[in-house]
Amino acid sequence: MNYGVTDEASARLAWARLSEPADSVAVALIERFGFHDAFHIAARGGTAPNGKVVDRFTARLKDLHLDRDREICERLGARQLLPGDPEWPTALDDLAVPPWCLWVRGPVDLAAVPSRSVAVVGARTSTAYGNHVAAEIGAGTGARGFTVVSGAAFGIDAAAHRGALSVEAPTVAVLACGVDRVYPAAHADLIAAVSRAGGVLTEVPPGSAPTRPRFLARNRIIAALATGTVVVEAGLRSGSLNTLRAAAAIGRPVAVVPGPVTSMVSAGCHRAVREEGAVLVTDAAEVVDLLGDIGGDDLAPAKRGPERVQDQLDDLPLRVWSTLAPFRSKTVEEITVQAGLAAAEVLGALGELQGRGLAELRLDGWGRV
Amino acid sequence: MNYGVTDEASARLAWARLSEPADSVAVALIERFGFHDAFHIAARGGTAPNGKVVDRFTARLKDLHLDRDREICERLGARQLLPGDPEWPTALDDLAVPPWCLWVRGPVDLAAVPSRSVAVVGARTSTAYGNHVAAEIGAGTGARGFTVVSGAAFGIDAAAHRGALSVEAPTVAVLACGVDRVYPAAHADLIAAVSRAGGVLTEVPPGSAPTRPRFLARNRIIAALATGTVVVEAGLRSGSLNTLRAAAAIGRPVAVVPGPVTSMVSAGCHRAVREEGAVLVTDAAEVVDLLGDIGGDDLAPAKRGPERVQDQLDDLPLRVWSTLAPFRSKTVEEITVQAGLAAAEVLGALGELQGRGLAELRLDGWGRV
Repeated sequence: MNYGVTDEASARLAWARLSEPADSVAVALIERFGFHDAFHIAARGGTAPNGKVVDRFTARLKDLHLDRDREICERLGARQLLPGDPEWPTALDDLAVPPWCLWVRGPVDLAAVPSRSVAVVGARTSTAYGNHVAAEIGAGTGARGFTVVSGAAFGIDAAAHRGALSVEAPTVAVLACGVDRVYPAAHADLIAAVSRAGGVLTEVPPGSAPTRPRFLARNRIIAALATGTVVVEAGLRSGSLNTLRAAAAIGRPVAVVPGPVTSMVSAGCHRAVREEGAVLVTDAAEVVDLLGDIGGDDLAPAKRGPERVQDQLDDLPLRVWSTLAPFRSKTVEEITVQAGLAAAEVLGALGELQGRGLAELRLDGWGRV
Repeated sequence: MNYGVTDEASARLAWARLSEPADSVAVALIERFGFHDAFHIAARGGTAPNGKVVDRFTARLKDLHLDRDREICERLGARQLLPGDPEWPTALDDLAVPPWCLWVRGPVDLAAVPSRSVAVVGARTSTAYGNHVAAEIGAGTGARGFTVVSGAAFGIDAAAHRGALSVEAPTVAVLACGVDRVYPAAHADLIAAVSRAGGVLTEVPPGSAPTRPRFLARNRIIAALATGTVVVEAGLRSGSLNTLRAAAAIGRPVAVVPGPVTSMVSAGCHRAVREEGAVLVTDAAEVVDLLGDIGGDDLAPAKRGPERVQDQLDDLPLRVWSTLAPFRSKTVEEITVQAGLAAAEVLGALGELQGRGLAELRLDGWGRV
């Protein structure tokens, strides 16, 4: 019985059913024997020629129906994606264990995503502040041609997707369950909107439930699919820090948004700046600066306060201007003492200030305009 | 007429009266001729032998009364401090232009301050959040033997002083006005408390008003007197960033507290992390870690979330534990399929989980404890 596994393509799809993502026994078998032969070794069970016991895969053979999986996809309008397909995002090959295949729904061209995209992830138990910032970053990067990649979870993920949707930018959700399932169920509308505006994808086959190991494995796909990762809020144990580390491990830029030090869901972000070299970002422009093209339109404008009168003045006129008051005139002698300057210096400076419209001569002395 | 200026000590005190702090003409004269000779050249006015016009100092000669200054000090219980005095903080000599002398009130030994102290400064228009964090840092560093140095201004400065006072730790205020004056007037009680618990000091002579150039000059003394500087809240144009830069310029560690990116008074802090290499700190322990002794008690404890069950488990038992539920029992076969493991692997893991009290065998299968 060959389960329909006749080549590498069918073997990849079968492995996704047989094994948990990135299972170490599966990875060792596949590396040694290739997808096709490794599959048939696993299907026999017992001990493989590499000495590994491979019984862990046999219990799922009864659920292996590649034809049925294909039919589910067709019914859903989803597609199976394999390395070598034009749409396969080769950026995923940067991972220690890339997904063996993907299931995708939506108009997105996954191959184009990694070149201009941002993973915006964070706490499910986010605050109104975090949701606001995530939505602003989603909208702001989306408006500048970035695809927002996230996980469709409660909290920051949802806010980031919604930010992108609000400016009709493409956004992509990577799921920990089958492409035919909706998790969390309360996000059915959000996930439907994301799949219409961009895409929904997963490495686990149709029907799969979202489990803890699959969430962890899913995070590495978010990290690899995006140009870089931004964590908006994260507690010290947040899974989104796992995404951040996965991104850093394959050389992607990583950033976090700061927040109040009194907020537990900003503590993970602050620690990432202190201990993990994450860049601090405060808005979409700084994210675009970090992940976009070098220079040009993607450069964030320098953060400056409003220009002030003082900025235009050299030391001497500034010292004189500082002594002037709007509602009390001062004599040149008073100014001379207060500014610590000679009368000639004060008169020169007053002339310059008058010329700029910053000082005026009144009946009783000089005043600030 | 020699104005009582007969040696370097009296010349330093006279220069503080004659010149604005760090005035460039005064500095050039003093560097070239020394304090005493430079004073008498300045007192003559006209053009000095170095070619500089020195008329700017002559208008203040009429206010130069060293005896009167000394009497004011005695009446106040203040003291004049000069380089060479045992209490002179030699750390000030790191500055490009150290103060020529200091006026000090309070029991503090200024010479001891720079070795274990922190400048905590920030916006006058601070938020409740910033005030809270400044007070926590003032109290937390004060409790660990740090002297809190600040400027007695509204907002962050006041909160930092009060934090230190709340734990009866020494705290020091550097003023931009004479040691006999109180600015801001609303802080009369605070400044009195600071001078009782630590000290109040200034480089400008008795009676001097606080002016803009004196605030800027004052900031460099705060920066040089403290082991390092922490800015708690600062807008993009905040004077406290000037203190931060003065500290960095003489090699002192500099840090900032982050805040909401939606808060304008955190924008200067965030920019300092992004562009000026300031360290991000979130509490007193991290400040102590940055500025205290290497290792030992001054090391900040690592920031960790609460320990969780999962942290103690290896991969296989964790995968099995993840499939278990508290209120629904599962058969070994179900677990085998869900975990993607062999029955033997599942049984071994269940045994370990049972031994740790994390799983239990019920009449209808296995459950999470």
